[in-house]
Amino acid sequence: MKPSFDIAVVGATGSVGETLVQILEELDFPVATLHLLASIESAGSSVMFAGRKLKVREVEGFDFAQVKLAFFAASAAVSRSFAAQAVQAGCTVIDLSGALDNALAVVPEANADQVAGLKLPALITSPCSGAVAAAAALAPIKHLLDIEHVQVVASLAVSAQGREAVNELARQTAELLNARPLEPHFFDRQVAFNVLAQVGKVDEQGHTTVERRMVQELRELLGQPELSISTSCIQVPVFFGDSFNVAVQCRHAVDLAAVNQALEVAPGIERVDLDDYPTPVGDAVGQDVVYVGRVRHGVDQAQQLNLWLTTDNVRKGAALNAVQVAQLLIKHGL
Amino acid sequence: MKPSFDIAVVGATGSVGETLVQILEELDFPVATLHLLASIESAGSSVMFAGRKLKVREVEGFDFAQVKLAFFAASAAVSRSFAAQAVQAGCTVIDLSGALDNALAVVPEANADQVAGLKLPALITSPCSGAVAAAAALAPIKHLLDIEHVQVVASLAVSAQGREAVNELARQTAELLNARPLEPHFFDRQVAFNVLAQVGKVDEQGHTTVERRMVQELRELLGQPELSISTSCIQVPVFFGDSFNVAVQCRHAVDLAAVNQALEVAPGIERVDLDDYPTPVGDAVGQDVVYVGRVRHGVDQAQQLNLWLTTDNVRKGAALNAVQVAQLLIKHGL
Repeated sequence: MKPSFDIAVVGATGSVGETLVQILEELDFPVATLHLLASIESAGSSVMFAGRKLKVREVEGFDFAQVKLAFFAASAAVSRSFAAQAVQAGCTVIDLSGALDNALAVVPEANADQVAGLKLPALITSPCSGAVAAAAALAPIKHLLDIEHVQVVASLAVSAQGREAVNELARQTAELLNARPLEPHFFDRQVAFNVLAQVGKVDEQGHTTVERRMVQELRELLGQPELSISTSCIQVPVFFGDSFNVAVQCRHAVDLAAVNQALEVAPGIERVDLDDYPTPVGDAVGQDVVYVGRVRHGVDQAQQLNLWLTTDNVRKGAALNAVQVAQLLIKHGL
Repeated sequence: MKPSFDIAVVGATGSVGETLVQILEELDFPVATLHLLASIESAGSSVMFAGRKLKVREVEGFDFAQVKLAFFAASAAVSRSFAAQAVQAGCTVIDLSGALDNALAVVPEANADQVAGLKLPALITSPCSGAVAAAAALAPIKHLLDIEHVQVVASLAVSAQGREAVNELARQTAELLNARPLEPHFFDRQVAFNVLAQVGKVDEQGHTTVERRMVQELRELLGQPELSISTSCIQVPVFFGDSFNVAVQCRHAVDLAAVNQALEVAPGIERVDLDDYPTPVGDAVGQDVVYVGRVRHGVDQAQQLNLWLTTDNVRKGAALNAVQVAQLLIKHGL
């Protein structure tokens, strides 16, 4: 009989948390007891798991010594308040908030080797969707490239900001189609049929939290802490599925045939030929891989590699990657 | 009395052509006789100009010796068939199709000096919206930058592809909101609530026509024919207004204060501070300037300059720029 594990999911009522619980079931994850937790506002509701209704309890006061592994899929504030004490209690934490500075970022396709020698209990980050997608696509080809600079422009779906954001895009769209006056609530302006130049507030240098996060995590995942990376994250009127335009400036000409070959056999990647291209809605949503298309040089520039990536921001971009990290931990003796 | 000119507008029934006729009226352009022309399918209809209904005639058979200036706002095929013979007949052509290889690209904010010594009649291109926007924003600051590489990721509105594309986005959106099955017509797949990785077909190297066009025109407009520029054009579910993420990699640290100051006084530019950002729908549409926001370095990278641009793709990105080029020609003795 295979061992099974007592597990906690913090933020179980959010869209990522709910998907995470579904994926634990889908992948037949070896769960002994599943503790569903949330902040006081969301505690008390129920979530289905393996045919049973599980009650969601308050995270405050929960004894993390009861579980070997906890997923944190709630807010940055909840991770900051409870993740460190969970690790102190002997529980390995896989955090999805990006708020914990001293956590190891892991995407199995990119840096599984980092998990092999890890001392447990550990504090691990499941990175933001852009870092997951770019790491999964660049890790299998980085040995073919002498990278000078990586530029990622992310077109992010509203669902990364939760159900309220999804509802607002639907409501704004309906109001506009019915020629009713638009009243923004969740977003500070019209998001339907529009593009917002940033996702969240910017700091004094003009960067958003997710832009900084993507740079730091991608460097860590590629094992190149000094790598020159720039990011811009824009908000597009898409419900689910993030897309990324990745431009890699190299010091030597890029061998496209070798890149295509390496992507073709890379785990977690679905490569699409130039006669087609993947889209968030048509390909990525509901799928477990990162789609890679438009593999090409720059115009007149053999030293540049361009890629178009798209992935389900709630699954591979968040919940699925976290569960895959947990599977890797089990393989290495959680 | 100021001189006035006999003018032709080819493609007068399309969305850019119609806007062009409106702008001629708005700007009180010195028109003597206005000849509205179109391909045989669209000839016969009428367009309003200065309170009068003007009949649209067939371009085939029109004697371009009758006019001093012709705007070509029809298809690439129409420009290829008739632009050269118009110039031979003594008429200066301002082409918006991008199909004419030997035409001079002009954006008054960027390279007005090129028009000063031009031998007339001439063949001129009003560039694609991305080249217009990027040239207007980069021309006033290029002396402050030692540019190594420019990367433009364009989020294009559907209206650049005409009224059918606009109608299809509206129809697809309504079908999806009403949970009816989606049947794409104009686009080859769902464009509503989705992002398409490319606009139009790609060539053997994987580039679309508009991506190649933007690179060539931007080099010409900045007067740097060898400049390393890369572009990716994606289709977003936006009716009007194009947006551009411009990342400029430089050989030296970028002085943001100097860049902001130069943009603040540059003609045709509306600079937006970091406490806000411009969007296509909220700012650009219906306006005559290029909005520039999110002026910042890269994360940990003082040698990179990032800009977010947005402009009305039908006005400054097409019809308005063409009319401004014509105004410049008049100033220089058309």
